[in-house]
Amino acid sequence: MGIRLGDNQYGKAEVRLVHVNRDTDVHRIKDLNVTSQLQGDLEDVHTVGDNAKCLPTDTQKNTVYAKAREWGGTGAIEDFALRLARHFVDEHEYVSGARQEVQEYSWNRINTAHGPHDHAFSRDGAETRTTVIHKDGDREWVVSGFEALTVLKSTGSEFHGYPKTKYTTLPETDDRILATDVTARWRYIGVDHDYDKAYAAIRDLCLEAFAETHSLALQQTLYEMGKAVLEARPEVAEIRFSMPNNHHFLVDLSPFGLDNPNEVFFAADRPYGKIEAVVERDDAPDAGDAWKNVPGFV
Amino acid sequence: MGIRLGDNQYGKAEVRLVHVNRDTDVHRIKDLNVTSQLQGDLEDVHTVGDNAKCLPTDTQKNTVYAKAREWGGTGAIEDFALRLARHFVDEHEYVSGARQEVQEYSWNRINTAHGPHDHAFSRDGAETRTTVIHKDGDREWVVSGFEALTVLKSTGSEFHGYPKTKYTTLPETDDRILATDVTARWRYIGVDHDYDKAYAAIRDLCLEAFAETHSLALQQTLYEMGKAVLEARPEVAEIRFSMPNNHHFLVDLSPFGLDNPNEVFFAADRPYGKIEAVVERDDAPDAGDAWKNVPGFV
Amino acid sequence: MGIRLGDNQYGKAEVRLVHVNRDTDVHRIKDLNVTSQLQGDLEDVHTVGDNAKCLPTDTQKNTVYAKAREWGGTGAIEDFALRLARHFVDEHEYVSGARQEVQEYSWNRINTAHGPHDHAFSRDGAETRTTVIHKDGDREWVVSGFEALTVLKSTGSEFHGYPKTKYTTLPETDDRILATDVTARWRYIGVDHDYDKAYAAIRDLCLEAFAETHSLALQQTLYEMGKAVLEARPEVAEIRFSMPNNHHFLVDLSPFGLDNPNEVFFAADRPYGKIEAVVERDDAPDAGDAWKNVPGFV
Amino acid sequence: MGIRLGDNQYGKAEVRLVHVNRDTDVHRIKDLNVTSQLQGDLEDVHTVGDNAKCLPTDTQKNTVYAKAREWGGTGAIEDFALRLARHFVDEHEYVSGARQEVQEYSWNRINTAHGPHDHAFSRDGAETRTTVIHKDGDREWVVSGFEALTVLKSTGSEFHGYPKTKYTTLPETDDRILATDVTARWRYIGVDHDYDKAYAAIRDLCLEAFAETHSLALQQTLYEMGKAVLEARPEVAEIRFSMPNNHHFLVDLSPFGLDNPNEVFFAADRPYGKIEAVVERDDAPDAGDAWKNVPGFV
Repeated sequence: MGIRLGDNQYGKAEVRLVHVNRDTDVHRIKDLNVTSQLQGDLEDVHTVGDNAKCLPTDTQKNTVYAKAREWGGTGAIEDFALRLARHFVDEHEYVSGARQEVQEYSWNRINTAHGPHDHAFSRDGAETRTTVIHKDGDREWVVSGFEALTVLKSTGSEFHGYPKTKYTTLPETDDRILATDVTARWRYIGVDHDYDKAYAAIRDLCLEAFAETHSLALQQTLYEMGKAVLEARPEVAEIRFSMPNNHHFLVDLSPFGLDNPNEVFFAADRPYGKIEAVVERDDAPDAGDAWKNVPGFV
Repeated sequence: MGIRLGDNQYGKAEVRLVHVNRDTDVHRIKDLNVTSQLQGDLEDVHTVGDNAKCLPTDTQKNTVYAKAREWGGTGAIEDFALRLARHFVDEHEYVSGARQEVQEYSWNRINTAHGPHDHAFSRDGAETRTTVIHKDGDREWVVSGFEALTVLKSTGSEFHGYPKTKYTTLPETDDRILATDVTARWRYIGVDHDYDKAYAAIRDLCLEAFAETHSLALQQTLYEMGKAVLEARPEVAEIRFSMPNNHHFLVDLSPFGLDNPNEVFFAADRPYGKIEAVVERDDAPDAGDAWKNVPGFV
Repeated sequence: MGIRLGDNQYGKAEVRLVHVNRDTDVHRIKDLNVTSQLQGDLEDVHTVGDNAKCLPTDTQKNTVYAKAREWGGTGAIEDFALRLARHFVDEHEYVSGARQEVQEYSWNRINTAHGPHDHAFSRDGAETRTTVIHKDGDREWVVSGFEALTVLKSTGSEFHGYPKTKYTTLPETDDRILATDVTARWRYIGVDHDYDKAYAAIRDLCLEAFAETHSLALQQTLYEMGKAVLEARPEVAEIRFSMPNNHHFLVDLSPFGLDNPNEVFFAADRPYGKIEAVVERDDAPDAGDAWKNVPGFV
Repeated sequence: MGIRLGDNQYGKAEVRLVHVNRDTDVHRIKDLNVTSQLQGDLEDVHTVGDNAKCLPTDTQKNTVYAKAREWGGTGAIEDFALRLARHFVDEHEYVSGARQEVQEYSWNRINTAHGPHDHAFSRDGAETRTTVIHKDGDREWVVSGFEALTVLKSTGSEFHGYPKTKYTTLPETDDRILATDVTARWRYIGVDHDYDKAYAAIRDLCLEAFAETHSLALQQTLYEMGKAVLEARPEVAEIRFSMPNNHHFLVDLSPFGLDNPNEVFFAADRPYGKIEAVVERDDAPDAGDAWKNVPGFV
């Protein structure tokens, strides 16, 4: 019997980068949270503390900032992460792979009496845009997505026809609130895309499918959202969702002599339903290691 | 020497209420977080555990839900909180005062190919609207506000001319990023207002003043925001702000042979500046107990 | 009608300071979170952006670190905060008052086969110790406390005898779980005390009173905790508590043909009870501005 | 081209269960957070909203509570999760697999003048114990661990000998603070173990290895922790760690005429190092699907 090192990676997490494009008086800003991790021949770091092949996490952080300047900005987060991954793998012989994760927070221009302001912004509280780039030698994968897109339907949702067992107490319903915080990640086919345009389209497809689907189960809504994306966006091989069912319970007002025709609800915290699924093309290229190191999905 | 009970109050915190107005097919929703607390002759509860004058917190919770139905909805959060406070104080002889706090989360209709959806919503990630009602016998105060309105200016902010001491290392600057999460609370004069209209106006005044003020100190920006509100809204006696200075540090890229003309910033978490101030009318009616139990302000 | 600046203060929040005492090989560590805020003649900062009397928040931060070295460590957090407050007020003519808040996180030595380790520690996950010093000219107040001391009794708690109204549904009980996260703050009489010793004693008194009180209401438990502290610690003028009632609901297992003799509970998140009260000496010196700027208490 | 459903699972997340063992007057409590998820023939739920094979998440929740009573308590979280998984898979023909995750929060008895209290507890703020059971038909895997075990060494940590590049600014050091929040998960060989005993031993082995290792890199400390566990515990096939490097930066006090001999540190929030690695036996049985659905590890 021996003991050995298995899979491993290391890096700098949550490098907060704000880039201001000042090419004109109308500033544009990118607000990012970058996590850089590297793989390589790291046996000696672990077993004897020899750092000769360990590019410090501090250097990775410096690189993120320096490249944002060298490259004149970041561009789409997928392009920035891909370029960072290539820099790390291509420029350091002891680095064999890289995982670069970026979250982007969106900002809107503040409206004034004179129109949208040139350099004053308010944070758009909506979802966070994400990407995880995985590069292993020459192979590259791009998995993008969003987190915490919170949506709710006040009607148009039913739930019935499920198996009844000894432990069933839930009544069937043909009208309930359906609410969830959508986390989605999709795998691109290839690595050359107009990522900003694709993101905007996919986000809207998800929102519209959520709104338009008369739901018999949250799983059905999820699937319709995935199908809508795959039908419209040929660059997407598969899309994965993790969606809590944020329960809104109808309050029983009968003790107070009141009815409650689906008007007054208690929004519960825990427990919540948790629905996870992949919707995929049957002819998509193999995922390879695209999902390795992408936490939280089936 | 004796030991005695001092000020006290009790109640139910964070009652999550979602009300759906279904009067037409175009649903309207209110998403609230209600905290009800009562004051009264509560000596015996504390000293001997006699609950005869202690309206249970569970009953307070039930009341929030029941009244949302009895009253056909909540209306503006200020009106809902005032009516709740009056119910508790007027209908229970052992209740002498009430503090009712409400937070409101905003939702937007999802846009579809057919226009804004009738009953599908996405959570507007922006600020939370708040109110704290304090009622003591016949006296009533309304303090409203918002939390977590996150804003940023990419230029138009300077900081210099401050005293230099032995412990000074900060360089002066005539161009920096100014970013903050505005928490504001304002006291209304009287209790009869169109609160929804006032809220929208005050929020916009704050945003516009933040954007339009060329800032020599975050305190100055704060004051201009307060002044703008008081000049435009006669129903506001005073406005209090708590504003972190969310530091964005220019990254020193010179070790890498790069300049950094205010383009690449590190957004820091802690420590942060913390600026708090009241802007008030010199002829405003006395605050009385309006601010009692309103945490977090000078 | 005029508009003017009211109360205000500013400073640097959450300065994270870890001090290592290396006087011997057995290291001692202090892990603090310091918030420094100052008051003074700050009219011009707000109204015209003149910073001539505004000691920068960055300088306040530097001072925290420098003084920890100059003074050979921090000592008890109350002593450190008092000394900082005196430094700011006494050494700067334009500073008239100071609020210094410190949170302390506790660490234990890791046990090894050779006994407690000299320089390896694990974070004691228990409560956070706190202090808020307020200094206005020559007057000084010390308010200390703890946050998030989470406790639970699995029996020895009843709740009955409360008023029944139209909105009552809660059944009375003579055996329930009582659970809370105690936040306490107490005001010291004077400013010269052995704060470490007092803290340890007060914390233990609270815990023991929680455990030993057969509770008829959480308010009663709170009062007994306060009384125990005031009876044993003459240096404490008053103690204030904010205690959620963290509900543990007995699960109804009857639909499954099972009884539930107080064994299986659902620990709820929201809503929760919220109990706040002051227990005080009737002959205590006046509180003055001790509680000004201490958020979250009645 | 067709679109199809890929991997999926669903269930109820974060079922908060507190079980009180009242067999004697000395109560014992278990405080758990249970997430139950099932797999099966769920095509129709997703594609047409047919729930005939979808055991509701509400029923899964009920089952968690009912079984805690039927089984006279939960026992070790691994045993509870295994029994739940077997119940779901064995008793429902349409359920083919189950993932059962449990987090356990620990409580200590409150010390009183009469010794440890029978039924009063304080929450031990230390780490959370975890397990994830995966059952697919007859195959079963147990992955246990802990989260958020926060540790720090005030000396005995060096970092040097790393590659220098254009983007290097970090100085080498032979004495730094090393601090991390250890998250560990280990895979058991087989499913019949004394899990409570194993947990206590593995936790202590990790702590002691952290303390005793003179560290040349956080990776080396991690590896020594894993090696210590595998050498002492034959039931463990592999152990995976995710460990942030919680940076403590020496504050530069030279502008104030002060030295800083490793005494005064700034504890930073972000960015932080992030170190992940597997330490494994070279003759361990294949992992199968043990790690499927265990988020956050390489």
